[in-house]
Amino acid sequence: MRCACRQAARATSRLYVLRQPRAYCATQLSLATHVTTGVTCPAPRNLELEMGSLDGFIQRVRECNTGLEELPTLTPFLIDGKEVGKLKPRFVDQLRRFPKVFIVEGTPGLSGRVTLAPELDTCDKRSAKVADVLQVLRTEGFITGWRDELYPVVAAFDDLPLLLVERAAATHLGIKAYGVHINGFVRDPVTGALRLWVARRSLTKPNWPGKLDHIVAGGQPHGLSCRDNVLKECAEEAGIPRELAATARPVGAVSYLTIAANGYKPDVLFCYDLELPADFIPTPQDGEVSEFNLKPIEEVAEIVATSTEFKTNCCLVIVDFLIRHGYITPEQKGYLQLVAALRSGDCS
Amino acid sequence: MRCACRQAARATSRLYVLRQPRAYCATQLSLATHVTTGVTCPAPRNLELEMGSLDGFIQRVRECNTGLEELPTLTPFLIDGKEVGKLKPRFVDQLRRFPKVFIVEGTPGLSGRVTLAPELDTCDKRSAKVADVLQVLRTEGFITGWRDELYPVVAAFDDLPLLLVERAAATHLGIKAYGVHINGFVRDPVTGALRLWVARRSLTKPNWPGKLDHIVAGGQPHGLSCRDNVLKECAEEAGIPRELAATARPVGAVSYLTIAANGYKPDVLFCYDLELPADFIPTPQDGEVSEFNLKPIEEVAEIVATSTEFKTNCCLVIVDFLIRHGYITPEQKGYLQLVAALRSGDCS
Repeated sequence: MRCACRQAARATSRLYVLRQPRAYCATQLSLATHVTTGVTCPAPRNLELEMGSLDGFIQRVRECNTGLEELPTLTPFLIDGKEVGKLKPRFVDQLRRFPKVFIVEGTPGLSGRVTLAPELDTCDKRSAKVADVLQVLRTEGFITGWRDELYPVVAAFDDLPLLLVERAAATHLGIKAYGVHINGFVRDPVTGALRLWVARRSLTKPNWPGKLDHIVAGGQPHGLSCRDNVLKECAEEAGIPRELAATARPVGAVSYLTIAANGYKPDVLFCYDLELPADFIPTPQDGEVSEFNLKPIEEVAEIVATSTEFKTNCCLVIVDFLIRHGYITPEQKGYLQLVAALRSGDCS
Repeated sequence: MRCACRQAARATSRLYVLRQPRAYCATQLSLATHVTTGVTCPAPRNLELEMGSLDGFIQRVRECNTGLEELPTLTPFLIDGKEVGKLKPRFVDQLRRFPKVFIVEGTPGLSGRVTLAPELDTCDKRSAKVADVLQVLRTEGFITGWRDELYPVVAAFDDLPLLLVERAAATHLGIKAYGVHINGFVRDPVTGALRLWVARRSLTKPNWPGKLDHIVAGGQPHGLSCRDNVLKECAEEAGIPRELAATARPVGAVSYLTIAANGYKPDVLFCYDLELPADFIPTPQDGEVSEFNLKPIEEVAEIVATSTEFKTNCCLVIVDFLIRHGYITPEQKGYLQLVAALRSGDCS
């Protein structure tokens, strides 16, 4: 018996079309699903995007890893002997004004270092004194985009925090920042084709206004597990009910390293896949998203490969999704380069 | 309506049991499947393996990346100015005996180098002359396990081969070797639980006799695409029909770097997921496998974490599978370390 899916597999995008199926089903329905419909049609194949090269994806990954030529000018920031950040020269100059909290040793640059006053020997003490400094810098307009959200300062994700700082200061201090990004997708029950929910960021957002984004993504604050953060962000950003959000599945992580205008960003994003029912419609809850659109995965791939419409770091997570779901294959030149580049930063 | 799957979710292994579901389905059935059965039960969650730590998995990854303290004793092997391998001192000594083919320059070690005679200026010429040398070393018993299978010698996977060599010489020459590993799994149509087909290697295999292995795995020879190699190996090793094998989905790659007794191994494995029908039974075809067993994924995880029963590099691919399918989560200490370690070698 031929699977009915076969007829439905067809091109859905100008640039990136599904390769023609041969004698088997080219859709993405699982075997189990096919069995329940009374046919034995194998799982998906030939999902490979038809594109000249993977260069567009590789370019997006590069855009997440920029400014590294500035690295020698940055000064390591250490707590308890562990490097937890890197500081731009002008931020070091600011911190020199607060010698009871921040101690600048040696020449600014990789051979110098910034530490905290030794009497600040607990996380609580450090956090209180550093917060005072950051508030001054905020008042003076040096630190913008204040969030009232605390980030833990760690040498690696599993460590206990050595210090808690306001999120808006994270890049200035060059600390490791973590986030959760959720690929919210819908699987067509007939064709198995995947569509991805894409958010448009509000024009009033301080960062990346108007850019495309994941249905849900957020920084990983102090005191929440990734799982609980996923639940919280799903509710806040897209009105996804808790029981549905709880079905999000962790699928790995990507990392990148950028030296931006305001500092050093060694970021790690935990990636999640969340399969959503076809009749679920996300709704903007907190003013951060102006609209949600459900786009065929081939169209999403085309946007990522050919434009900078997406917030840059979302591109890494989407490329990871395309790789894990078989849309990018070893037959495409640059496959391994792309796979490896998804964890260009310090993934720890 | 409550999903019938819920009752079926239960512990399947002593050490690694599924966490208790709360108010939703803890199985792995896709939304689409649930919809077809008339219930709206979300996709899987709480798949996290209950284990004290990820240390067992991290240990398996370490076992794929050993002997690196010997690195300074290895001599780079260059063709056309590109480094394509690294050689142990005793192999350099062997190659010195063939000065019309191999040229040893400088002191053996990282500052020295081995090249080919300049008149060998095409892949064909190099391959013919090097084959003569390797045949001598085979006859003398220096190279064992001859396969009559050619591996391309490249600086990176997408490059045109600079030389073709017998597979048995790959580790001696320290060239990049590539392979395909297939996670052949069955999804229970009622509970959604995953089981993985596990092969037992024949006791007569020269390498890793008697060890557990993937249902299908093979080296990537010259002249075959990964996709075609998957089809070929599926037929040869497990009797998987071509149309079923063609549903294998590429899902990424892992890499590792080992300095073994016989040489340098910078390997990259292309990973595939192949969902198999519950009634499909693989059959040993070529004498390389003594038996196949279908094991609950939690049991496979337990074997990997607590023993060296599996051929070492299979462990990387299985851990990658567990991460991609949500069995290992960011809540488990060592998650990022494990994710990053899966590509410890040069993934190019």
